[in-house]
Amino acid sequence: MQRYFSEVKKDNLFLLKADDLYHIKTVMRMSVNDEIEVVYQENLYICKLNRDYNAVIERIIKSPKIKKREYVLCVPILQEQKMSFILQKATELGVDLIIPILTNRSMIKIEGKENKKIERWCRICKEASEQAKRLTIPKISAIKKISDLNLTGLKIVCSTQEKNNTLKKVLKNNLKYDKIIMVFGPEGGLTLEEEQTLVNLGFIPTSLGDNVLRTETVPLYLLSVLNYEME
Amino acid sequence: MQRYFSEVKKDNLFLLKADDLYHIKTVMRMSVNDEIEVVYQENLYICKLNRDYNAVIERIIKSPKIKKREYVLCVPILQEQKMSFILQKATELGVDLIIPILTNRSMIKIEGKENKKIERWCRICKEASEQAKRLTIPKISAIKKISDLNLTGLKIVCSTQEKNNTLKKVLKNNLKYDKIIMVFGPEGGLTLEEEQTLVNLGFIPTSLGDNVLRTETVPLYLLSVLNYEME
Repeated sequence: MQRYFSEVKKDNLFLLKADDLYHIKTVMRMSVNDEIEVVYQENLYICKLNRDYNAVIERIIKSPKIKKREYVLCVPILQEQKMSFILQKATELGVDLIIPILTNRSMIKIEGKENKKIERWCRICKEASEQAKRLTIPKISAIKKISDLNLTGLKIVCSTQEKNNTLKKVLKNNLKYDKIIMVFGPEGGLTLEEEQTLVNLGFIPTSLGDNVLRTETVPLYLLSVLNYEME
Repeated sequence: MQRYFSEVKKDNLFLLKADDLYHIKTVMRMSVNDEIEVVYQENLYICKLNRDYNAVIERIIKSPKIKKREYVLCVPILQEQKMSFILQKATELGVDLIIPILTNRSMIKIEGKENKKIERWCRICKEASEQAKRLTIPKISAIKKISDLNLTGLKIVCSTQEKNNTLKKVLKNNLKYDKIIMVFGPEGGLTLEEEQTLVNLGFIPTSLGDNVLRTETVPLYLLSVLNYEME
């Protein structure tokens, strides 16, 4: 069954957004009384479409699970295709917060387009959340500088210099954290200065092993392993 | 430095394939005396281009590592874009053998095009191996049926039915194997009959956790976790 997120509840029905209505009418060609899933405030409802294409509640299915750990992924600004790819896959793999970051070796200029980009990225995450049957949509923060990443939690920076601190060692030694923040670099990597800035902020330089991974593969690797290790 | 695979060594030089020569001349615009890396029989050589665009050996750098475990990925026939994606990413993540498999829910017809497809897939794996700085290229077998997957090793089938046998349990209980064979389904999954056929062949039905992953994300998840757990 198709899943949509709604933010507006009126008595026993939900209002849907314009792009969801387009999807329901034009892409899925649904009509009156067809069933859809609606997520509202992290609860899942089975609904039927009425004549005005509002979603009338039939029953509530599932309360949200208490998630044990929060995953924060800091993503360097990359070209749009790679960015979409990372947002989609990170959503599938359970990311909670995306922080887009400015890095020295990022080749993409986004001055003046920040808000439009973030709007687009939010849309990608919402659609990926519907597909992945999530009860939450990952949040996307404002774009930040490396030096602004003064956050609390287990802080990991993917390093090509580091050889001893493998991801396995880092995770095994830090199982107590309920928030994990990950930073990885753009093509060409973070500069040594950027890595040092992060280390000064408490990030642990971490090796991902011997494989040479493309930039966009790194967050998938990280989130796959976290899902596996922290389950 | 750009890396290419060669299969022909003559005295102190390697001959390169037509598509590599095209890449060297037209894409990279290299000329006489430019350096490239050449992998020949799993050894890495630093070479200089001569006037005929052969690679003259300067020095050998690195003997192959003895790899501890062999990763075999059985991939359902999917549409070409997803297939390329899986082959590229699986190559980055260290896969050794790809077995394309026919499944009931695969929507793609390839009768009569098998050889052309396999040729194309081999090319994708070769190029991804060069990018990922591998010393080996993953092999691609002939297309097989599920009932032909009579292989020896730790055998895992990704199951949406299974709840108790998590990937973590399966791997922890089977660390001794030096060959791991993984099967996952196309969109819509394997049928119950297909899963049963695999179980009869000794495959362990395995849960990948609560996230709803797209077909093409599953092999990335599997290989990421194997790299992490088996390091």
